[in-house]
Amino acid sequence: KINQQRIWDSLMTLGQIGGTEEGGCCRLALTELDRQARDTFINWCKDAGCEISIDQIGNIFARRPGTNPDAAAITTGSHLDTQPTGGKFDGIYGCLAGLEVIRTLNDHNIQTFRPVEVSVWTNEEGSRFAPAMIASGVFCGEFDIDYGLSRADSEGVTIGEALKQIGYDGAEPVGQRDIHRFFELHIEQGPVLEQEKLDIGIVTGVLGMRWYDLVIKGTSAHAGPTPMAYRQDALYASACMIKELFELAHSNEEGNTRSTFGCLDVIQPSRNVIPGEVRLTVDLRHSDLDGLQSLEQKAREIIAAIAEQSGTTAELNCIWDSPPTAFAPECIEAVGNAVKDTGLSYCELVSGAGHDAVYLSRKVPTSMIFVPSVGGISHNEAEWSTIEQIGAGTQVLFNVMQTQANI
Amino acid sequence: KINQQRIWDSLMTLGQIGGTEEGGCCRLALTELDRQARDTFINWCKDAGCEISIDQIGNIFARRPGTNPDAAAITTGSHLDTQPTGGKFDGIYGCLAGLEVIRTLNDHNIQTFRPVEVSVWTNEEGSRFAPAMIASGVFCGEFDIDYGLSRADSEGVTIGEALKQIGYDGAEPVGQRDIHRFFELHIEQGPVLEQEKLDIGIVTGVLGMRWYDLVIKGTSAHAGPTPMAYRQDALYASACMIKELFELAHSNEEGNTRSTFGCLDVIQPSRNVIPGEVRLTVDLRHSDLDGLQSLEQKAREIIAAIAEQSGTTAELNCIWDSPPTAFAPECIEAVGNAVKDTGLSYCELVSGAGHDAVYLSRKVPTSMIFVPSVGGISHNEAEWSTIEQIGAGTQVLFNVMQTQANI
Ligand SMILES: NC(=O)NCCC(=O)O
Ligand SMILES: NC(=O)NCCC(=O)O
Repeated sequence: KINQQRIWDSLMTLGQIGGTEEGGCCRLALTELDRQARDTFINWCKDAGCEISIDQIGNIFARRPGTNPDAAAITTGSHLDTQPTGGKFDGIYGCLAGLEVIRTLNDHNIQTFRPVEVSVWTNEEGSRFAPAMIASGVFCGEFDIDYGLSRADSEGVTIGEALKQIGYDGAEPVGQRDIHRFFELHIEQGPVLEQEKLDIGIVTGVLGMRWYDLVIKGTSAHAGPTPMAYRQDALYASACMIKELFELAHSNEEGNTRSTFGCLDVIQPSRNVIPGEVRLTVDLRHSDLDGLQSLEQKAREIIAAIAEQSGTTAELNCIWDSPPTAFAPECIEAVGNAVKDTGLSYCELVSGAGHDAVYLSRKVPTSMIFVPSVGGISHNEAEWSTIEQIGAGTQVLFNVMQTQANI
Repeated sequence: KINQQRIWDSLMTLGQIGGTEEGGCCRLALTELDRQARDTFINWCKDAGCEISIDQIGNIFARRPGTNPDAAAITTGSHLDTQPTGGKFDGIYGCLAGLEVIRTLNDHNIQTFRPVEVSVWTNEEGSRFAPAMIASGVFCGEFDIDYGLSRADSEGVTIGEALKQIGYDGAEPVGQRDIHRFFELHIEQGPVLEQEKLDIGIVTGVLGMRWYDLVIKGTSAHAGPTPMAYRQDALYASACMIKELFELAHSNEEGNTRSTFGCLDVIQPSRNVIPGEVRLTVDLRHSDLDGLQSLEQKAREIIAAIAEQSGTTAELNCIWDSPPTAFAPECIEAVGNAVKDTGLSYCELVSGAGHDAVYLSRKVPTSMIFVPSVGGISHNEAEWSTIEQIGAGTQVLFNVMQTQANI
């Protein structure tokens, strides 16, 4: 029913905004490129007859009215921002699939009881502004609006300022829209569906994740005359921590244990200076709360022991805590029924990545649909899914949305 | 004979140009601050009656004529640039001690047979522009002038451009001055003299050192859905290399084995992205050539093995090779005689840091004098030597220079 070529073409067109030589996309949240992508998306939604609203944290809602003006909406959506080394699919797919649902309803002149809405959530990636999923978090009451607007990027520009700069500081109070159920379609960003040769993932939940800032302080000193035994090398200490925490997670992948150091800055680096201070970011994940808690506990012990041995000090500061999420059984079941109608192959799985659906699920019944990622690769310019995979996921989303919009 | 308070005051005054809150100095080569320090130094030398010359790579020579206008000069000097986390003594001391020698000769109306010169060498630290000691290297024929002028900082600004910006692109061809012998006075930058409770180090040579750029390439991927076993994490691989090379040097400090990673950049970092590329700098040192060669060989083996195990690639590229230096016996002896005259305590030692004297020694008989560094600390804002230590070293330099200027 949906038009596979049409959503594919829309994806490829939007991917040109911030498109990289390697075929990926670098379009950080609330940059000029993000503005262009948002404008394009809104124009397409208007062409499809939608009413557009923008809230005070820049979330976009495109609404196709239902026959009952008072009914809460069936909403889908994701994000348009990307990682620095991002692809064309992560997030964008979920927004454009929502638009494809509306275009398909229009093609067939289908009326729905409930309004159908597509949402674009600001700064999902957490790359320019930490934490991730911040604007869906504000929408759902996890963060208050002042916290959201005041988060700053590495240059000190806040979300509030950046919204004004690109003209997306909307008027609508955040979190006031009436959503009946929320469904998010996304690429898997991992290897499971491809390995199992399955078309669709019915997502039952999301790993718990915690983000930390880690500051290691040693003593800067001269690379030549300072004997190795005298050194308090903050980079050596950091290296020992990275290695040990990687191997801890590697040796116990039960519960999807994950440990990632994404950013590392040597403060005032120089080739012939033993680093005196290093700042890192840490990302720990686990499928259950006890597991996540004990992973953090072990990380703290490892970090303290290495700091002690290396004559450095270490400060680990949690800046974001997103507990493991279980999606609503009725929404999981609805996706399951929609898949069965199509004859596509499927399995249930847990998402290793955070999504706006995590925060939405705290406010309204929510679940997610995954399609395979080629090679399991994401947050990489080589991120890819085939046109058939993109089409299949969109069809499942259409089926769920249409059914749910009439209940 | 020399005026201890006068050189101390000059040091403290010059240290205010780029002075930091922590009491250190951040005055990178050929910046506006470096210009101010150079201007101040030149004004003081002019006040002391010196003739000033500036060569095409910005080296400064302040000359006090001798009674024989044709005699080659006795030259001393060091550098005015600092590390980002530098102190007030490293380099600056050697320049101002040279000026103090001239001021003292003036005080006592002493004529010398040979001219006495003080030199300031451009970009000794190697922090803004790699490699270190570049302008003394050009002076002595180690590098050609085009290589020197074309070295670029991390923003792409070349030495040639930076010299023009601060007005220190002099007219004199580089390397044409007639130097009879060169003596450099410096702080030790290491712990030996302090530990041995000695006043003066008679420096017999300098460790061999090699600088490398190391590029590790893995695959950027999502921190959540990517199982640990699938990762090709360039930062994890880097961490293993840093740890193993640190411990290799630590377990064998014979020959003053040193291994330092001063800079590390994650390319396009993001908290939830497994690093796909990391660029590091490596500094290896050893007191003899075979030892340095075998250290590099082991480093190559370790790096290759870790790259293989971690599914990454590693490219180690040597950008600077300064072999171990042995100073001229006649100059070492001259310093030894000068120390004995003073009654100060002393020992012979080898420098772990490179100095302009390394390159000067390839062209003219050269040696160095060290004074203690409090706590052995340098390339750190806490770098310190006492007024008495500063005075003692200057007196030894004066004695050597005066004697040598009359031979
Ligand atoms: N989908 C996605 O990449 N989300 C970013 C949040 C996370 O780090 O999992
Ligand atoms: N003296 C000094 O800090 N020189 C810099 C060159 C080196 O790295 O040893």
